[in-house]
Amino acid sequence: MAVTIGVDAMGGDHAPEEIILGVAEALRELPGEDRVALFGVAERMEPIVRQAGIATDRIELIDCPQVIDMHDTPVEALRQKRNSSIVRLASAAGKGNVDAIISAGNTGAFAAACQLRIKPIPGVTRPGIAVVLPTFHGPALVCDVGANVEPKPRHLYEYARMSVLYSKHLLGVDDPKVCLVSIGEEAGKGNQLTKVAADLMKRDKYINFAGNAEGRDIFAGAGNVFITDGFVGNVILKLTEGLAEGLFKTIVREISDESAELARSFEPVVERIWKRHDFAEYGGAPLLGINSVAIICHGRSDRRAIRNAVRVAREELRVNLNAEIERFMDDGLEDSE
Amino acid sequence: MAVTIGVDAMGGDHAPEEIILGVAEALRELPGEDRVALFGVAERMEPIVRQAGIATDRIELIDCPQVIDMHDTPVEALRQKRNSSIVRLASAAGKGNVDAIISAGNTGAFAAACQLRIKPIPGVTRPGIAVVLPTFHGPALVCDVGANVEPKPRHLYEYARMSVLYSKHLLGVDDPKVCLVSIGEEAGKGNQLTKVAADLMKRDKYINFAGNAEGRDIFAGAGNVFITDGFVGNVILKLTEGLAEGLFKTIVREISDESAELARSFEPVVERIWKRHDFAEYGGAPLLGINSVAIICHGRSDRRAIRNAVRVAREELRVNLNAEIERFMDDGLEDSE
Repeated sequence: MAVTIGVDAMGGDHAPEEIILGVAEALRELPGEDRVALFGVAERMEPIVRQAGIATDRIELIDCPQVIDMHDTPVEALRQKRNSSIVRLASAAGKGNVDAIISAGNTGAFAAACQLRIKPIPGVTRPGIAVVLPTFHGPALVCDVGANVEPKPRHLYEYARMSVLYSKHLLGVDDPKVCLVSIGEEAGKGNQLTKVAADLMKRDKYINFAGNAEGRDIFAGAGNVFITDGFVGNVILKLTEGLAEGLFKTIVREISDESAELARSFEPVVERIWKRHDFAEYGGAPLLGINSVAIICHGRSDRRAIRNAVRVAREELRVNLNAEIERFMDDGLEDSE
Repeated sequence: MAVTIGVDAMGGDHAPEEIILGVAEALRELPGEDRVALFGVAERMEPIVRQAGIATDRIELIDCPQVIDMHDTPVEALRQKRNSSIVRLASAAGKGNVDAIISAGNTGAFAAACQLRIKPIPGVTRPGIAVVLPTFHGPALVCDVGANVEPKPRHLYEYARMSVLYSKHLLGVDDPKVCLVSIGEEAGKGNQLTKVAADLMKRDKYINFAGNAEGRDIFAGAGNVFITDGFVGNVILKLTEGLAEGLFKTIVREISDESAELARSFEPVVERIWKRHDFAEYGGAPLLGINSVAIICHGRSDRRAIRNAVRVAREELRVNLNAEIERFMDDGLEDSE
């Protein structure tokens, strides 16, 4: 079945050039009948689309004269910029005019627009953002990383079920081990939220619950899926980025101080590690639980990240993740508050 | 003024040997009239004390036949093991029999014992654990990292004031910049707790409030002090440890794959970085807000970490941090809920 993937051409540090070049690369890999709809300022998109040599029958430009930038407050931006690529993109997905949407723009605005304009999957009460962290033991899925900063236990429980399905169908993990991020591995440690959520997950027959995980366990391979509230998840995500980047910089500097020759021989090692642990490989963070496919990309996304995001969106459609989620959510999800 | 510092000889992975050897080293640096009281199982401490050649007039052994280990549940342990080094240590501090206490044992039990047996400083409603994170831009103080997993805004506000004083008097930072850990730098982002807490801090004349900080800002030098709730702070602390360790291991492995020679030349670089960013340098985490000096050491503490902890405890007494805290807490702390 042919699909149309909507892409925000105006979002991120390297928009629109890198976004459109990423789309061009992605189109070469997609089935010939698939199309991309580019949302953005038409006159800025046109020359790049031409230059990239994208076949006109595979792309559609949707002119959105307004642009939401990184510094806009999500709520205000959504109200005042109804003709922005982000709002139009979410609306198009909500109406079913596109099958999936991708943006590297203002994360808060994009996530909020999706939640406002796209219905949740039946059985899901709150969508969550999942992100694939490249750990030393393979990819780990962390959910939620910012959609829901004051969740109820029931929301975490839903994240766990949805993440299990994502891990299984998109990351190829057979029987994903699910951990709940907490502050001690012992059951009964944590705060009110995690204590109740742990109880719900433990009793669920679809969740292979491996118990509480501390911050350090995420990178130690304790599980395939880590469930947490959006506040903690966001701190985890940002801290990981900042610390990894800072450590590499420090090492490179220290090595250069040691000897220029040593620094040169270290370069390929750094490149290899970066590549293997690169967020961009996983093509952005899916917003799980809405009745469409939405991929939230990093603001720094380059063409490779966008190409991967399109690939992942296409894959989510192919495996029909949302139908899987709906089917599971319907089956014996225990009720709590 | 001579002081007595109580040390838990039974706490941590390398107890009692490394603890006692650390105490022996510390005593050499302390003023001659200062003493250490070692709390633990007498017959296990005695031979090591003798072997370490510690002068008998500078040490006292307090026999505590029970031992709380890492796997004990804090609440139960405190109830059932009243004759453990941890409980006896906290009681001695509460009664003023020792001036400061140090343990590398069960963190939860030690922190709980301190809060049960030692009065808070007048004006402080909840003590918090502060930890010094060695960042690429110098040490950053993060508070709370686990004493209070469901704090009120008022508690965070108190942590900010206490941390400013600690940063000033113990870390030598002139006018510490205080950040609140949140999920977006813009004011108004975050959850209910951080929004109210940010407001309180912003209006306080003693707090140089630099606004919200995301996870990545902690290692990017955004501030000298980072305030957060105990749940998030604990995740930050553990994640940092796990990620840094994992990254170094990965790099070393990749380099060894590249060439054995390269690996050898990389060794001194690793050592230098480890040393500069080593938790042990800062001698453990102070529990701020109690009417004594308590230093919580990492379970992996070796003699150097213990020596540093004793040094830091002594320094806290010398600058009389608690008197400073009491004086400040009394002055115009705005009330909220």
